[in-house]
Amino acid sequence: MAETVRAAVMVHPGKIEIQEFPFPELEDGALLLKVEMCGICGTDKHTWRGETKQYAGTNAESDTPYPIIPGHEVIGVIAEMNDRKEPRLDYDGTPLRVGDRVALCPDVVCGKCYYCRHTFAYPWCENLKGYGNSLTSVESPHLFGGWAEYMYILPNAFVYKVPQALPLRVAVMVELMAVSYNLDKTKEFFTLSGEGFATGDTVVVQGVGPMGICHVIKARMMGAGDIIATDISDYRLALAKEFGADYTLNVAQTTEEERIEFVRSLTDGRGADIVVECVGIAQVLVEGLEMLRKGGVYVEAGNFVDTGDVLLSPHRHFCAKNVRLIGMTNHPFTGYTPSMKLMQKYSHLFPFEKFVTHEYPLAQTEQALLRSMEPDCMKVVIVP
Amino acid sequence: MAETVRAAVMVHPGKIEIQEFPFPELEDGALLLKVEMCGICGTDKHTWRGETKQYAGTNAESDTPYPIIPGHEVIGVIAEMNDRKEPRLDYDGTPLRVGDRVALCPDVVCGKCYYCRHTFAYPWCENLKGYGNSLTSVESPHLFGGWAEYMYILPNAFVYKVPQALPLRVAVMVELMAVSYNLDKTKEFFTLSGEGFATGDTVVVQGVGPMGICHVIKARMMGAGDIIATDISDYRLALAKEFGADYTLNVAQTTEEERIEFVRSLTDGRGADIVVECVGIAQVLVEGLEMLRKGGVYVEAGNFVDTGDVLLSPHRHFCAKNVRLIGMTNHPFTGYTPSMKLMQKYSHLFPFEKFVTHEYPLAQTEQALLRSMEPDCMKVVIVP
Amino acid sequence: MAETVRAAVMVHPGKIEIQEFPFPELEDGALLLKVEMCGICGTDKHTWRGETKQYAGTNAESDTPYPIIPGHEVIGVIAEMNDRKEPRLDYDGTPLRVGDRVALCPDVVCGKCYYCRHTFAYPWCENLKGYGNSLTSVESPHLFGGWAEYMYILPNAFVYKVPQALPLRVAVMVELMAVSYNLDKTKEFFTLSGEGFATGDTVVVQGVGPMGICHVIKARMMGAGDIIATDISDYRLALAKEFGADYTLNVAQTTEEERIEFVRSLTDGRGADIVVECVGIAQVLVEGLEMLRKGGVYVEAGNFVDTGDVLLSPHRHFCAKNVRLIGMTNHPFTGYTPSMKLMQKYSHLFPFEKFVTHEYPLAQTEQALLRSMEPDCMKVVIVP
Amino acid sequence: MAETVRAAVMVHPGKIEIQEFPFPELEDGALLLKVEMCGICGTDKHTWRGETKQYAGTNAESDTPYPIIPGHEVIGVIAEMNDRKEPRLDYDGTPLRVGDRVALCPDVVCGKCYYCRHTFAYPWCENLKGYGNSLTSVESPHLFGGWAEYMYILPNAFVYKVPQALPLRVAVMVELMAVSYNLDKTKEFFTLSGEGFATGDTVVVQGVGPMGICHVIKARMMGAGDIIATDISDYRLALAKEFGADYTLNVAQTTEEERIEFVRSLTDGRGADIVVECVGIAQVLVEGLEMLRKGGVYVEAGNFVDTGDVLLSPHRHFCAKNVRLIGMTNHPFTGYTPSMKLMQKYSHLFPFEKFVTHEYPLAQTEQALLRSMEPDCMKVVIVP
Repeated sequence: MAETVRAAVMVHPGKIEIQEFPFPELEDGALLLKVEMCGICGTDKHTWRGETKQYAGTNAESDTPYPIIPGHEVIGVIAEMNDRKEPRLDYDGTPLRVGDRVALCPDVVCGKCYYCRHTFAYPWCENLKGYGNSLTSVESPHLFGGWAEYMYILPNAFVYKVPQALPLRVAVMVELMAVSYNLDKTKEFFTLSGEGFATGDTVVVQGVGPMGICHVIKARMMGAGDIIATDISDYRLALAKEFGADYTLNVAQTTEEERIEFVRSLTDGRGADIVVECVGIAQVLVEGLEMLRKGGVYVEAGNFVDTGDVLLSPHRHFCAKNVRLIGMTNHPFTGYTPSMKLMQKYSHLFPFEKFVTHEYPLAQTEQALLRSMEPDCMKVVIVP
Repeated sequence: MAETVRAAVMVHPGKIEIQEFPFPELEDGALLLKVEMCGICGTDKHTWRGETKQYAGTNAESDTPYPIIPGHEVIGVIAEMNDRKEPRLDYDGTPLRVGDRVALCPDVVCGKCYYCRHTFAYPWCENLKGYGNSLTSVESPHLFGGWAEYMYILPNAFVYKVPQALPLRVAVMVELMAVSYNLDKTKEFFTLSGEGFATGDTVVVQGVGPMGICHVIKARMMGAGDIIATDISDYRLALAKEFGADYTLNVAQTTEEERIEFVRSLTDGRGADIVVECVGIAQVLVEGLEMLRKGGVYVEAGNFVDTGDVLLSPHRHFCAKNVRLIGMTNHPFTGYTPSMKLMQKYSHLFPFEKFVTHEYPLAQTEQALLRSMEPDCMKVVIVP
Repeated sequence: MAETVRAAVMVHPGKIEIQEFPFPELEDGALLLKVEMCGICGTDKHTWRGETKQYAGTNAESDTPYPIIPGHEVIGVIAEMNDRKEPRLDYDGTPLRVGDRVALCPDVVCGKCYYCRHTFAYPWCENLKGYGNSLTSVESPHLFGGWAEYMYILPNAFVYKVPQALPLRVAVMVELMAVSYNLDKTKEFFTLSGEGFATGDTVVVQGVGPMGICHVIKARMMGAGDIIATDISDYRLALAKEFGADYTLNVAQTTEEERIEFVRSLTDGRGADIVVECVGIAQVLVEGLEMLRKGGVYVEAGNFVDTGDVLLSPHRHFCAKNVRLIGMTNHPFTGYTPSMKLMQKYSHLFPFEKFVTHEYPLAQTEQALLRSMEPDCMKVVIVP
Repeated sequence: MAETVRAAVMVHPGKIEIQEFPFPELEDGALLLKVEMCGICGTDKHTWRGETKQYAGTNAESDTPYPIIPGHEVIGVIAEMNDRKEPRLDYDGTPLRVGDRVALCPDVVCGKCYYCRHTFAYPWCENLKGYGNSLTSVESPHLFGGWAEYMYILPNAFVYKVPQALPLRVAVMVELMAVSYNLDKTKEFFTLSGEGFATGDTVVVQGVGPMGICHVIKARMMGAGDIIATDISDYRLALAKEFGADYTLNVAQTTEEERIEFVRSLTDGRGADIVVECVGIAQVLVEGLEMLRKGGVYVEAGNFVDTGDVLLSPHRHFCAKNVRLIGMTNHPFTGYTPSMKLMQKYSHLFPFEKFVTHEYPLAQTEQALLRSMEPDCMKVVIVP
């Protein structure tokens, strides 16, 4: 192996450099992952723009500690492993071996704080570490992001074996498919008397970039009725249709009133059962809430970083609407393995290979990031 | 019986008159109720002030059709009953008789619209009629409010037999105790991994007028841990303590920051598990949401009429907080009988007889209403 | 129209006659349905064999009141309607017209008893009437079963408009697809921590006659992982594969131990997440419970009539297993319309037209019934 | 400290000896607990009788590896602690100190197997170790049971700080109060339409030994309506009344039919909403299921060891009943701290100090065990 590792470092907002880092030593239980493919996520774009306030108002409130190696939608192969003391297991309890292809969960939790002990599967940890996000590249062993040749996988980080039959370009979707457990989460609130996600329900996905597309896919897998996608890009809306949306509305070509009216007319005037916000702009909540039926579920997932305020009416948007507004960050640890299983099993129904639209080598990471911010792409990935 | 019926009519905002109405004929299935006691509710105060936009943004959006006979928290005795065709049953299926004391559910639903057929127990009916609220006294048979000697009970209105042992002044609480099913509703969202209401949970009730007090009582009945009440009235806060609150915070004597800090310090910095909004002012949502722990439930119940907008941050207040915000109007039809059962069974634990603080005869309805808007009272009732 | 109506009457167990009945007069709200197609259900077979104890141990316990006109999986066209007093609505609130094609819900509930008022959508009514089942043909207006030219639809019976695009032979599946809401029901018990139906779950369906097949379809629509079907008929197992089963086990060709081992080996030794019993034999519970993982859900739906006892171990099968055993009769009123919507939307994924395998005219009802008891058929229907 | 530790060892069924063990060395993260009080549990009685098959039919199936030191309802003081590497935390994340009084969770889980990773809070671990139960005293460091002067607390065992104000004799209830989370668990299945535990519900507890009594207490804390206790001991039934039961039925003095009829007559003929089995005899399920209303919840918790089979009717007891039968072993890790909080907060409502009826020194452990099997005691404890 090489004596140094090359990685793309965001040294401050708007600036990416390729740097070299020493090849790391592995502590007990650690892995060295040879990165095969790593996605560019909406959060990375926020970080590029300097929009870095995350988990505001909670004990885990944080700002990005530049410089960092971004990248957290990672598929790689285990290059080295320190399992001298005990077998290193994947999340589901299976022993790992060098050469295994795995997906990484970027959220590393302490397992011992109040939230780790009292809530389940979501990383509400008070000591949360986020690969590609909250760990600076200044500190050894440095390799805490996926836009790099190798990553250092901490002993308590969760990895998941990738089934052999799953193509790399499909496997790289898994983190976002786990995010789409937002829809499974609404099933915790389900009753047959109109609460939560029911088969046949009308679902609106606001914004069909990669995260929104995965919610379209998941809604279809779960037996949704009509799925309506909104976006500013005809390119993305066309892909949304291929991935299961029944109707699309281009926000640049219609008025808010027209879109609300469209959803209501589809539902005998009532509104959608479920609306998922995957845009990441504060203002869109008003439109989404107006599209929702009384007693419907609004999933607020897109505003993962602080994007400002919006004026809402407690009466109209919450009380009279009998809304169930569910704020959701991250994704469940338990969502990776079944997501990969489902992508295999339902591969004949969805054109998964169209999800990754652009691949860039590590040296062109900045171009890749800029490209990912254009409207006519879906997932842009780094192939180091 | 008398040939006419006296009733207090709100002819327009800010104006109440005592009027006489003809003694009604009963259609099949209808009841004539001799009103024994009728509460003055927060909604009645809104109506007095002309704040009458209800169910905004839904198919049931409405404005109050003055003149009306207000009053919907009613206990009465069946004076007449038209059961010539078939037995008239109470909600639970028990045949009614003249002389029975009953509580009335003020929400009359059609039973045939989409919401009546697809949701349960809450009056999300598209053709909702609300006693004391949405039925004008101009139209025959006029007697659609509880501030009157008699009420005309429609064939499809729900009534509930009052147990003999339950004092009248306690029975009159039942409608608000049914409103407190807001807390039972959160149990539909319960999981042991930190979702919904758990025994031992910390509960904040914002505003402890009669509706808030009933939520304090219900939280205590359900096994809450610490209960914190906030209000502007020391009088009401003192009563809240007698009814089960562990801590009280006078909003007029503390800063928002102090109150948020108090709740956090009680919970190792995390925030309350459940916050119930019973104030009815848009601005209080910010404080309530800041008091809430990550993943906690915010019950928005107080803004039953349109009270304007509030600036909220989708990131901070919803997404990062992983909030479950539950808008709740009305109360379940199924909540009356168990509420009366619980008030009997737990009567040694709560000073229910202190709930009604002021009684007025029908002739002094306007004074009663003005009195109910003072800070140093709890429930004010009309005793026709 | 004809002056009399021909119907197949089961005069006692094992005996069917074609009889003629007077053309009925319609009371207010009643419909006359010209039957287009009516399925033969497992319950009908029990009735033929004299196994008629239903709802044993409940307030609704009953025996079949021979003679009856069987048949309750009905699609028909409204031939006459008495809507002189008020519009006759379908279940979802849409006005009906003569000529509309509708599906019938065979369970007619009173709407006023305790269960009608306190539970939702399932016919736990204390005064339940069941078309084709609990209403004798001796009493006027006689036409209470679907194996007839016309049916008399009571004013409070629920009917559902059939979408024009849905073929008759697919529409006739709707009652059983509504039964498969057994799987939706388990979502009420869902949490992400391993309770209830999760996407990707392993599902076993014991018995893939028509009811079992519909559960296979529904599990697939809802995003199941592996689906395993068991049956004694290779014919039915082959169809189960076409409808979405991944694996099939012929009970006549394998041992119980082999089948249990097969399911465990598919699940890393743990067992299936969900097992649905659609056989209707008491003994199969043991096998099903052994196939289930700890904490899994066992849906007991097949023993709709009394089929005797089975020896079970409270420790092994319930307590240690941490089982969630859900007894389910009937189906929800709310399940018809979304089922028809889903059958349309997912018609490219399932060969719905293969569901009905045999059609018989009314005159050959007894042959049809005998045919339906052979292993090499799926749904047998009467086309009057 | 002493150089040896005295402990009561069950060398084989029916035989207890006091033995001495070497004072242990503590590995990283381990604690040494000076036992203050340890209860005698029903499981200990089974072990005494040689009824030791646990978790039958699951991956964790086991038999007791005699000799063992029994005892798992432990309150003790931290005598030594090895926190040289890192702070030793209690379950809720608070650092521990020598001298802290703590409760122990007897179930030690690996944290890495499939069930540890996919289910929450209940010890469904495939590598479960049970203090006082599954760890033989032959193997070093021996001290794996609470009937001893000291216990060796493994690094990954969960302990919980006991609030200073909670008396020792009340604190020792905490494990069983955590078991009573069986009732909280049913809230995961709750909907307002008659599923799971609702405030005001009628609850039957079959068997009111210590475990049953704790379910009575919990049902009352959670807002139950009528609570009915059954037992063979008038002594225990009288205590059940003091702890919140409204009605008691002595099984030795009434027939099964009378008891079923009593419960039905209390509930207008319907049956109880919730029945909890705390007897541990296979046969009682029939009575319990007959007492249950349609759609009610049956909690099977008492048959923790294999007690044989019972004849049940899939139709009558499961399908027609629409039963929700919930098998429950153990208790949630998350149930200790809130249970102690609730016992403090509700101490004025329950005579908690009457729960422990007999205390014995370590030397008289065998007498204590025999005493605990008499009908006229509640909790018998060892005070080493």
